[in-house]
Amino acid sequence: MGSQDRHPLSPRLDHCPEGLPRAAYLDAGWYDREMATIFARQWVMVGRASDFVAGKMRRVTVGEASVIVLRDGEGKLAAWHNSCPHRGSELCRDEEEAVGKLIRCPYHAFAFAADDGRLVSTAHAVPTDDFDRKAHGLRPVALRVWNGFLFLNLSADPGEIWSDVGLQTLDNWPMDSLVMGHHWEHEVACNWKAFWENYSECLHCPGVHPELCELVPIYRKGIMGPTEALGWVPDDVPLQSNLREGAVTWTMDGQPCGPIFKGLNEDELRVGYSFATLWPSVYVVAHLDYVRAVRIVPLGPERTRLVAEWYFTPETLAQPGFDAGAVAAFAKLVIEQDGAASEMNQRGMRSPAFKAARLMPEEYEIHRFHQWVLAEMKAQT
Amino acid sequence: MGSQDRHPLSPRLDHCPEGLPRAAYLDAGWYDREMATIFARQWVMVGRASDFVAGKMRRVTVGEASVIVLRDGEGKLAAWHNSCPHRGSELCRDEEEAVGKLIRCPYHAFAFAADDGRLVSTAHAVPTDDFDRKAHGLRPVALRVWNGFLFLNLSADPGEIWSDVGLQTLDNWPMDSLVMGHHWEHEVACNWKAFWENYSECLHCPGVHPELCELVPIYRKGIMGPTEALGWVPDDVPLQSNLREGAVTWTMDGQPCGPIFKGLNEDELRVGYSFATLWPSVYVVAHLDYVRAVRIVPLGPERTRLVAEWYFTPETLAQPGFDAGAVAAFAKLVIEQDGAASEMNQRGMRSPAFKAARLMPEEYEIHRFHQWVLAEMKAQT
Amino acid sequence: MGSQDRHPLSPRLDHCPEGLPRAAYLDAGWYDREMATIFARQWVMVGRASDFVAGKMRRVTVGEASVIVLRDGEGKLAAWHNSCPHRGSELCRDEEEAVGKLIRCPYHAFAFAADDGRLVSTAHAVPTDDFDRKAHGLRPVALRVWNGFLFLNLSADPGEIWSDVGLQTLDNWPMDSLVMGHHWEHEVACNWKAFWENYSECLHCPGVHPELCELVPIYRKGIMGPTEALGWVPDDVPLQSNLREGAVTWTMDGQPCGPIFKGLNEDELRVGYSFATLWPSVYVVAHLDYVRAVRIVPLGPERTRLVAEWYFTPETLAQPGFDAGAVAAFAKLVIEQDGAASEMNQRGMRSPAFKAARLMPEEYEIHRFHQWVLAEMKAQT
Repeated sequence: MGSQDRHPLSPRLDHCPEGLPRAAYLDAGWYDREMATIFARQWVMVGRASDFVAGKMRRVTVGEASVIVLRDGEGKLAAWHNSCPHRGSELCRDEEEAVGKLIRCPYHAFAFAADDGRLVSTAHAVPTDDFDRKAHGLRPVALRVWNGFLFLNLSADPGEIWSDVGLQTLDNWPMDSLVMGHHWEHEVACNWKAFWENYSECLHCPGVHPELCELVPIYRKGIMGPTEALGWVPDDVPLQSNLREGAVTWTMDGQPCGPIFKGLNEDELRVGYSFATLWPSVYVVAHLDYVRAVRIVPLGPERTRLVAEWYFTPETLAQPGFDAGAVAAFAKLVIEQDGAASEMNQRGMRSPAFKAARLMPEEYEIHRFHQWVLAEMKAQT
Repeated sequence: MGSQDRHPLSPRLDHCPEGLPRAAYLDAGWYDREMATIFARQWVMVGRASDFVAGKMRRVTVGEASVIVLRDGEGKLAAWHNSCPHRGSELCRDEEEAVGKLIRCPYHAFAFAADDGRLVSTAHAVPTDDFDRKAHGLRPVALRVWNGFLFLNLSADPGEIWSDVGLQTLDNWPMDSLVMGHHWEHEVACNWKAFWENYSECLHCPGVHPELCELVPIYRKGIMGPTEALGWVPDDVPLQSNLREGAVTWTMDGQPCGPIFKGLNEDELRVGYSFATLWPSVYVVAHLDYVRAVRIVPLGPERTRLVAEWYFTPETLAQPGFDAGAVAAFAKLVIEQDGAASEMNQRGMRSPAFKAARLMPEEYEIHRFHQWVLAEMKAQT
Repeated sequence: MGSQDRHPLSPRLDHCPEGLPRAAYLDAGWYDREMATIFARQWVMVGRASDFVAGKMRRVTVGEASVIVLRDGEGKLAAWHNSCPHRGSELCRDEEEAVGKLIRCPYHAFAFAADDGRLVSTAHAVPTDDFDRKAHGLRPVALRVWNGFLFLNLSADPGEIWSDVGLQTLDNWPMDSLVMGHHWEHEVACNWKAFWENYSECLHCPGVHPELCELVPIYRKGIMGPTEALGWVPDDVPLQSNLREGAVTWTMDGQPCGPIFKGLNEDELRVGYSFATLWPSVYVVAHLDYVRAVRIVPLGPERTRLVAEWYFTPETLAQPGFDAGAVAAFAKLVIEQDGAASEMNQRGMRSPAFKAARLMPEEYEIHRFHQWVLAEMKAQT
């Protein structure tokens, strides 16, 4: 069988396509266009909805925009651009500030309704009649809560979100009831796409992740699952766990940190973990005992912040002596390895000899990501 | 009466105009154009003329230009670009250096007459006959002393200075005899225009300057004087001090730090302080007992240095136990508040939701400033 | 005799030409073009060939390119771009790493033959048939060893090297047997060309290098040799040493640090030192007892690294109590003075009053350098 033969159900590519051009990873102009298209149009995860409590407004970042998120007295979430329509000042100066029914600009005391953003007062200023108060309310940012995560969208005409497009990966997990037990931030010196690309293939696993390959033996073959293997054909064997014999979850010893989630179906229990890939801002890994989300926050063409959080049921967290940090340690190790590999990739792409990657059939997900990036940038410029 | 009604003598705007576009505060290209037009054509204050003593040359900055200022043996001031016409080297390497009749380049020892800039010696070099010595003298920078301040102008064809345009604000103050008693520098993370705009309106005073509003009660209403009030009409009441009952000057307790200046007229004494606004580089506040100047020095699109100085008569300074720093403390507090507000404004203008300010009628001076900036940039590009 | 009269054998210019425009020293775009033309086409020195030992690969920089240099088991040198043809990763992560017959990418374990760069293994990836293995080998970098120095050239069609163009300056020196005794790096805040220009003339010597002028008295006149003097005509007097009476070499006391090299001819012995100027990357000074090389490594429009090394015969190094650092001290002093002068020049060229240098007849070598720079940039863009 030739190397290009593959079963139609295999995700392998049938050719070795070119990747994005070098400028995509280095050029400030390319980065600015991504901010003005992808990050200005897509749903971006900014935290757990439950992190936003009534009576407080919090400042978050979506692409290049500073956004205020708050929960009003009735529990409804709202999101507004953090810039006063009068002279542009920041409205929320700190990470988190108290807020009531009004958001008051700290510069000239213009006041806006926290729930609908309308201009309520120009304080000491008395505008002339040509001033259209309705045109000078707070600028809204679209929001949706999905599986307990808060997503924002800067577009005036935001598209569908994950549940709209039929993504059901997390449906059987008790997402809404999970509580954050560990939070970790890690900056890496690479383009945000380099980290996504690293996430998207396992050819690097044997060399980069010895501990992970110990836990998930198939990774030693450079693939993420059996359907990626050359020559794979469907069979009647039910889906199996990729975890090593005796391992149940991604922890240092493979043992669960608390009770197994109720409600998972047979397949989910057998397979052992599920990934939800939510370009451009986050991926979620749902284990049988806990859930992990990793946000990818671009800071510049060659700088990216990773924000990882670990979520547990309240009963898991309440176990005597429970140590969420110890649970997180395994994935932190893997993420640090991924970050170092992505930085190594980034440094090499600075070479003038690098023009573009040549992707392997196993890198089908990177190819799909590249096509998505190009289509999103094109559609809106 | 409608909010747009206003007496012709009131400075209030009759509409709410748009401000400068967002790029004016953030963009490196816009900043470069300002340097090449406004700061390359306007009079820029660089210190007190008396700071420049005979026998010394000092290095100052005008926009992006390094300039040498010196006073020759006969007491005459001269200003030259700090770059040798031969290979471009700095001529003055330190903040201040000794100088005699010649300025000698420290690189190749070319010598120039300190008073008229002519090339006196090429040291060991022997130019060929095509070399035009007259074309290779020092490049002059225009200078004028006004009220004891030294102003420089990079233009070959400098325009009128403040006295030429009839600015008489300081005429009754003993400006030439004042001596610097306190010097303070403070860097702020904002565009130079954001700080000027802050200076130009008092709508922010109630929220930003509680101590100042205590001293100048009308500021609590968001205006700088009665003519700005909505519905103001001229009356026969003479001008009054805006200072609170019992206060005479801007100090922590409102009490003067020395004798009241002689020569001020009745109006000046009654009003209590006068502002001279000298775009783009400095404003001067003349109190009854001391004078303060604040220089606004652009360092980059989002970085500005403030240089404030306090001037006194020699007899005030000679008072036993006189503490100029204690006098300065009040205005320093206000300037720090203004700086923090301008930084908050700057951060908010980075929002992609910010397109331009919408100015209030009370912000007439900002509007005038914006029109001046645009006209100056247009006139010379 | 007029100042433009000169004997045809004198190197003096017959006019005073203009230098490069200001942008050549400050502008990021100009710098990028230099990297893409001059440094991408010229031979660049990266160290002594003997520094590269069998079994190790070392990472060096040529212009903006990271390059791996290694010596294979048979002692043959090879140079490859440090970027994997698969996804672009760095191949050599450290300054120096062990290497055998294969260079293995640390990211996905693709392996390449160290000697000819061919793709040997794609590790866990199985490319489809459209993948052309021959097109995905390591990208070679041309190399030549000249007088024991390793030169690299990024061009696919590299031009002649110094021996090809007839440069024989070092032919009588025992270059291949010399060993590095001292290594020193020094960063300067100037454009790389400003340092080359400083190297190219001695008009600055009297003011900048008092100790050097003591050792080489003719430098006190601002010239590097008698033929540069105004009015020079050939005579029958044989070439003389420029060193002061009793001095033999460039050391603090003028005394040699070991035996005089064998094989130098009468003229070389009498003159006392010879310069080899190898734009854009290095100059070599051959003394009677040791050799010095100074590499000029551009880091940015206003930043340059100097890498100086001192080379000796093994017998000189083996002298009891021999102190290479003490030998190096003299030239380090001179290089530091040159660096400070170049920084002073750079700061002055930032002045908007600086448009271009006006060169003196003694600055013939700078003029030649400028013409070379412009021609090289033009030829390839």
